[in-house]
Amino acid sequence: MSVTFLSDFVAGLNQKGRNLLLRNRFGRQQPLDPEALCEALVSRAGEVSCFMLSETILSHWEGLDEAGQADFLTMIAHRFGPDRKAIAKAIAAVEESDDAEALYRLHAASEPRSQELIRRLNHALQGTERLVRMREVLLRLARTDPALDTLDRDFAHLFGAWFNRGFLELKPIDWNTSAAILEKIIRYEAVHEIGGWNDLRRRIEPKDRRLFAFFHPQMQDEPLIFVEVALTDHIPGDIASLLSEDREVLAQEKATTAVFYSISNCQAGLRGISFGNFLIKQVVEKLRQELPNLRHFMTLSPVPGFAAWLNGLPAGESQRLLSAQNLERMRALAGPGLPDNDDARANLKPVLEGLAAYYLLEQRNARKRPLDSVARFHLGNGARLDNIHAFADLSAKGRKSGYSVMVNYLYDTKEIEANHEAYAERGVVAASGTVKSLLKQFLFRTQAAAKSNPEPEAHHAL
Amino acid sequence: MSVTFLSDFVAGLNQKGRNLLLRNRFGRQQPLDPEALCEALVSRAGEVSCFMLSETILSHWEGLDEAGQADFLTMIAHRFGPDRKAIAKAIAAVEESDDAEALYRLHAASEPRSQELIRRLNHALQGTERLVRMREVLLRLARTDPALDTLDRDFAHLFGAWFNRGFLELKPIDWNTSAAILEKIIRYEAVHEIGGWNDLRRRIEPKDRRLFAFFHPQMQDEPLIFVEVALTDHIPGDIASLLSEDREVLAQEKATTAVFYSISNCQAGLRGISFGNFLIKQVVEKLRQELPNLRHFMTLSPVPGFAAWLNGLPAGESQRLLSAQNLERMRALAGPGLPDNDDARANLKPVLEGLAAYYLLEQRNARKRPLDSVARFHLGNGARLDNIHAFADLSAKGRKSGYSVMVNYLYDTKEIEANHEAYAERGVVAASGTVKSLLKQFLFRTQAAAKSNPEPEAHHAL
Amino acid sequence: MSVTFLSDFVAGLNQKGRNLLLRNRFGRQQPLDPEALCEALVSRAGEVSCFMLSETILSHWEGLDEAGQADFLTMIAHRFGPDRKAIAKAIAAVEESDDAEALYRLHAASEPRSQELIRRLNHALQGTERLVRMREVLLRLARTDPALDTLDRDFAHLFGAWFNRGFLELKPIDWNTSAAILEKIIRYEAVHEIGGWNDLRRRIEPKDRRLFAFFHPQMQDEPLIFVEVALTDHIPGDIASLLSEDREVLAQEKATTAVFYSISNCQAGLRGISFGNFLIKQVVEKLRQELPNLRHFMTLSPVPGFAAWLNGLPAGESQRLLSAQNLERMRALAGPGLPDNDDARANLKPVLEGLAAYYLLEQRNARKRPLDSVARFHLGNGARLDNIHAFADLSAKGRKSGYSVMVNYLYDTKEIEANHEAYAERGVVAASGTVKSLLKQFLFRTQAAAKSNPEPEAHHAL
Amino acid sequence: MSVTFLSDFVAGLNQKGRNLLLRNRFGRQQPLDPEALCEALVSRAGEVSCFMLSETILSHWEGLDEAGQADFLTMIAHRFGPDRKAIAKAIAAVEESDDAEALYRLHAASEPRSQELIRRLNHALQGTERLVRMREVLLRLARTDPALDTLDRDFAHLFGAWFNRGFLELKPIDWNTSAAILEKIIRYEAVHEIGGWNDLRRRIEPKDRRLFAFFHPQMQDEPLIFVEVALTDHIPGDIASLLSEDREVLAQEKATTAVFYSISNCQAGLRGISFGNFLIKQVVEKLRQELPNLRHFMTLSPVPGFAAWLNGLPAGESQRLLSAQNLERMRALAGPGLPDNDDARANLKPVLEGLAAYYLLEQRNARKRPLDSVARFHLGNGARLDNIHAFADLSAKGRKSGYSVMVNYLYDTKEIEANHEAYAERGVVAASGTVKSLLKQFLFRTQAAAKSNPEPEAHHAL
Repeated sequence: MSVTFLSDFVAGLNQKGRNLLLRNRFGRQQPLDPEALCEALVSRAGEVSCFMLSETILSHWEGLDEAGQADFLTMIAHRFGPDRKAIAKAIAAVEESDDAEALYRLHAASEPRSQELIRRLNHALQGTERLVRMREVLLRLARTDPALDTLDRDFAHLFGAWFNRGFLELKPIDWNTSAAILEKIIRYEAVHEIGGWNDLRRRIEPKDRRLFAFFHPQMQDEPLIFVEVALTDHIPGDIASLLSEDREVLAQEKATTAVFYSISNCQAGLRGISFGNFLIKQVVEKLRQELPNLRHFMTLSPVPGFAAWLNGLPAGESQRLLSAQNLERMRALAGPGLPDNDDARANLKPVLEGLAAYYLLEQRNARKRPLDSVARFHLGNGARLDNIHAFADLSAKGRKSGYSVMVNYLYDTKEIEANHEAYAERGVVAASGTVKSLLKQFLFRTQAAAKSNPEPEAHHAL
Repeated sequence: MSVTFLSDFVAGLNQKGRNLLLRNRFGRQQPLDPEALCEALVSRAGEVSCFMLSETILSHWEGLDEAGQADFLTMIAHRFGPDRKAIAKAIAAVEESDDAEALYRLHAASEPRSQELIRRLNHALQGTERLVRMREVLLRLARTDPALDTLDRDFAHLFGAWFNRGFLELKPIDWNTSAAILEKIIRYEAVHEIGGWNDLRRRIEPKDRRLFAFFHPQMQDEPLIFVEVALTDHIPGDIASLLSEDREVLAQEKATTAVFYSISNCQAGLRGISFGNFLIKQVVEKLRQELPNLRHFMTLSPVPGFAAWLNGLPAGESQRLLSAQNLERMRALAGPGLPDNDDARANLKPVLEGLAAYYLLEQRNARKRPLDSVARFHLGNGARLDNIHAFADLSAKGRKSGYSVMVNYLYDTKEIEANHEAYAERGVVAASGTVKSLLKQFLFRTQAAAKSNPEPEAHHAL
Repeated sequence: MSVTFLSDFVAGLNQKGRNLLLRNRFGRQQPLDPEALCEALVSRAGEVSCFMLSETILSHWEGLDEAGQADFLTMIAHRFGPDRKAIAKAIAAVEESDDAEALYRLHAASEPRSQELIRRLNHALQGTERLVRMREVLLRLARTDPALDTLDRDFAHLFGAWFNRGFLELKPIDWNTSAAILEKIIRYEAVHEIGGWNDLRRRIEPKDRRLFAFFHPQMQDEPLIFVEVALTDHIPGDIASLLSEDREVLAQEKATTAVFYSISNCQAGLRGISFGNFLIKQVVEKLRQELPNLRHFMTLSPVPGFAAWLNGLPAGESQRLLSAQNLERMRALAGPGLPDNDDARANLKPVLEGLAAYYLLEQRNARKRPLDSVARFHLGNGARLDNIHAFADLSAKGRKSGYSVMVNYLYDTKEIEANHEAYAERGVVAASGTVKSLLKQFLFRTQAAAKSNPEPEAHHAL
Repeated sequence: MSVTFLSDFVAGLNQKGRNLLLRNRFGRQQPLDPEALCEALVSRAGEVSCFMLSETILSHWEGLDEAGQADFLTMIAHRFGPDRKAIAKAIAAVEESDDAEALYRLHAASEPRSQELIRRLNHALQGTERLVRMREVLLRLARTDPALDTLDRDFAHLFGAWFNRGFLELKPIDWNTSAAILEKIIRYEAVHEIGGWNDLRRRIEPKDRRLFAFFHPQMQDEPLIFVEVALTDHIPGDIASLLSEDREVLAQEKATTAVFYSISNCQAGLRGISFGNFLIKQVVEKLRQELPNLRHFMTLSPVPGFAAWLNGLPAGESQRLLSAQNLERMRALAGPGLPDNDDARANLKPVLEGLAAYYLLEQRNARKRPLDSVARFHLGNGARLDNIHAFADLSAKGRKSGYSVMVNYLYDTKEIEANHEAYAERGVVAASGTVKSLLKQFLFRTQAAAKSNPEPEAHHAL
């Protein structure tokens, strides 16, 4: 809305509203009282007041330093929580008669006032995007403040509705996309860093490379999540050959495999609002329609928790799994110590892949799900763990977090739903014969070593 | 999603899911059990199941006859209401300790399961639009069934979120708009009927006529509400001259006044989800930007409850307000009996306008608001009742419901918010001096008549 | 360009230019001298003058009555023809030395000045469209005035360049197309009249009906030519079943045949600028891509010159071809006299179809091409005459001009080019075995009749 | 068109056409004969042949090396020139009777066949763009081959028609423009080099910077010409402050002046096809509409021929104009020798500006126009030389070609047309009082020096 329009409207506010707003917006003689403004926003009904107040509150918030923002959020958490009096009254009514009406009132009464506050803040210009930014700060602060964690539930609940699947729009990103969007892709790539415009171009311009992102109608210039795809004629076992500068471009009609080699969430403020599962399935469908020759849809994914897990094991446990020499070698991998001859690599390969299979298939968290976050994501989506590759990501990051291991998760539409349900209901991890066999051999060698070396501190065969 | 894609996915469902779905979708050997399907939909988590189940349930619903649809909705209302056990448990927890966590759980527990059901039905193709159609039926049935009225609250709550202001897109409708949209405009016009394509053309093609509609991203082909605007160089006092076939088109730069002469809600299933106030304000702003010469923004509105109100008055009351002769004349107006000479019109005019002022300003409902629905809409938006015109709508409908009276509501951006607040908080009706004066003279004449004719049955001076 | 901009520019013209323009545009004290304006336009170089002058000349022209427009065009034809002096000089130079330079100058010198005039008139706003309108008038007048015919060559030459294939944009027209375009489709349909919006809707909304039009970037709101297509599962032998109101819509995947049942040129001012051959081929290609099941692409076309041809034959010739009774019956067909029983129809059918085959295949004009304009169009495009149907168009127009006969021209991409070349180079008409056989039987019967009735005046067997 | 479509069509060609094409396109057993293909293209009529032949010829051409391309063009120039026989016959006919018909035939006969050849080559996919590339090569070769110069006229004539003003589309280029277009802007910038994406961003993202380009509908991805604009609140006298990385962005409403600081032609193959004058005027108009506060529209332009002119003067002449010391100083400027103190600068400033005024206003070419190409461009467009600034472009290029001098050309809509006409008809250079005064003082000093030092070899006062 234009400035004229707003100033006309301001003229139409009653004196109290005018005092509240104008003094602070234009004169600033007196300090702004954010609590009073928020109180006015949740309790008053006028469309224009609503717009002016939300605008004022958000502008105020955006001008605060970090401490000020923390204070503001804490104030909201404490002053706009549930209305205990109203709840007690509603409970009393239910205890008298639990008819639908009373129960409905109880539901309404128990809604924290912060929800309505957030809803109304959304009336400001670009309100949704500004609230996503607010939650970004909130999530950071909530790590150390449980009161803010409760407030975050309101954001999460409302964002779940606002960013529901039906509103997300899948858009291909390529060299014809606007520079404004592309520079955000460069910035948001979280898996395999994009080193500037030329590197980006290599990932989106060739006919055998694709990038798709979800957008939301109220945040047109901000990708929410994106996936990078390589079309290949084989199942790739390492990332460097995919990203190589001098690789040959594959003719589209020869592509048999779509490799999802990088998935990045872009908005920290949308953490926990799930898009990734829709994204991959919609991209699979889109590619199938365009390229009927495609037969395999799979990822080439990191195993980001692999090294941290091994390092966190008690000494006895890690020694049970690995010989001292192999443990040494793996730790060297995390640093600059790549095996310098083929033999050493050949020896280390089954150890790495077997241990990764053990980590991904056998190790579980308290909720009986794998420890690795990327594994949980794809398995939860219905994918199958299809293959494991040692020496697949030789970047510093890849070696440090995953000892250079990468894996393929396969999206087979015929089994996605069955996999998903088995995983969701019973924690079953779908895995290919290849992976199961890697695990079996690993366990066999481990047991063999244990038998031949009954004393745990002794040297290992592995 | 393509047929191939779906049938692949169906192949991936587990046996139970497959039995549930396939039998009914493709074989139909056994009757479909909608309750079981809905139960599966709210309790199961898989993306594909969710899509398939919602699709199956909505297709089933759409194939039902009216009795079947009523049964279905009643089933939902009874089987997917609040979970009393869970609520009782949550109440017990709160009574033990009313910390934020317990209160939050109470809020979650008291949400009727039907809300989650509706959310998930929205995953079907065109889900939002199909649910709007479902609510259309629900609203019709709810008039006579209080259980369905409770269910409607869930729809209303969710639709309020899905159709929030930020998602609505204002689009100008003109002769370059698609025929598919235009035929809906013809069909949905609710105030001054559009008599086919030529009539429509007269309302949207000339440079001094405009039509704006709100659309929602998930219902691209369905206008939600629209307003028709005439640009004029005067404040019009009747509708016929605005719609006349042979009127002269006004050059845009001569226009000083934008007249909103028709506002129509298009979707019965969105009743109670308010768009109208945003619509008028956004159109005002749009027109101001395009045509800086515009100075007045006002409606030419019907008074749809006028005749019904007068007819519903006790005899004594109507006789107090009007002489028998005038009462007779007004009732004649509702039929074909338009005064056939200028004198008769001139005599009747102040009576009609004064009585209308009395009806709009003095008569109130239980909530202290005017009786007339159109008046409540515009006054609630912050408009002012600016003028009243007798013999302004001589169509059968206009005479029958409003005794030919039309009124102007003025949208003055400088006072919209103050008017709105005074109305919302205290029921104050903003009215111009002209209208107040019409009322004053009317009351004066009525009292004068009462004094000179103390016996109610006697003849009146008016 | 805005009015301000223009008036500033006008202020910048020198006095002579200003006098020329302003007096006439705004004051009109003196009569405008179109010849002087045109002279100024072809000889002066300034961008703004060029714009102002072209605008002034075209506005002036559009305000003239028909006689005035004829005078204007005659003036152009006489005053802006070839520059004889310059040509003579260029010829002299060539005769001295026919080097490339001299020949080039001769080419330049021999260009009529009217070409440059038209080029510059094109600088006015909407210049191209206005010049198309001008040529519409010119073509009408040129029928009786050979000087204007010469002028028309300049228009035709320039329009050929401006409307070259590369600029034409093929757009599908359907129920989502703007009303502004659709009403022009209704107006321009030249083969099977569209009886209003509902009739139009039946031709563009069902999934088995299509309409495609060519547009030009400088005439965005004006279709140039369009074709209507029916998708069917058989080869249709009459038009009524295609256009029937209560026909069943065919599922797209069942369609095997695309029937081009109506092709209409929209712009009289673009006569002779050929688009039709590109149109059909592009539509064929577009439909093949969308619907790979389509196997046959053919027209259902009128034979518009059939009746006129028969009526124009010398009596002896028509009697040689038809018995008196059949001649009588056919003439009755042209009026309201449709055979009222199946037997009569069955008897007349081979006569009608055989005579049509004879007319289309055997009768030729001076350039050895068929007499029928529709036949020349499709055969010239490379189509084959595939079938002939009696009683296929029972509308008054169809009976009167074509004795109810319609034909199929088949576009078989495998033979289009060979057909085209054989036709273009040697006048060969491609025809199916069916059509050839119709002709053969017809000729056989005719000869048989002739033999058995050697005297031409006698009765015939046919 | 799809491959299927083409191969079907190829199957439809007659044997001779098939031999011609297929052998070369797919088998290549025999060498392709481009002359025969071109001959076939100009003489045959079929739409498909036309497409196939043009496609084949252009593909062949694009595969040739530079020598091969030169041979091809020479072949065209010699074999497809004017048809001398036909011309002689047409001349004979004209000499018999010079009626319109005969003259028209002479015009047609004298058109070189190469024109029709180019027209038909344009039927290939992306034909226009490929022909622009062909002319790029042709122009390079034509410098040394007059026969090719004649051929270029045909290109120039046809491109003039195809790229006429009505087809050009002005598009704003900003940070929301596609990367594919933006990288071309980086590449094509010809005045002040753009040093990568960050530098580009500084020129198009801030609100006080604009870039506009012309596009053609058949070359959607290729800008034809673009202009860079800075919005300022003063008339800038040097380029560095405009392009400075750390300058402050000006609020749009404070901008009073639009500075066109860089204009680049993008397509070498469109040399001589004029767009620049339309471009500036349309941008002026666009900016005026958007920002009514803008009052001045002017360039900040280089004087690219300044140094070359001075260096090319006979020694006597340069000594007449400048003292030896100043001549020395200026030559130092062209190298790294910028005056290192303010006094030296202050002394050199009037010399530089005066000499530039003399160069721009007084020095003329054979056609009585200024020597400087940039000056001819803007003065020919109707601009006025408004100011001259020494030390305005201190880049190596700016010092070397223009001794650091830059000038402002002012576009004043009130005088554009008058300036243009005075320039076009009489070579009058419009200049401001400031510039005239610079010249006057310069001449005064020069004459004074000449008087006091009558012997040319002696030292100068200047």
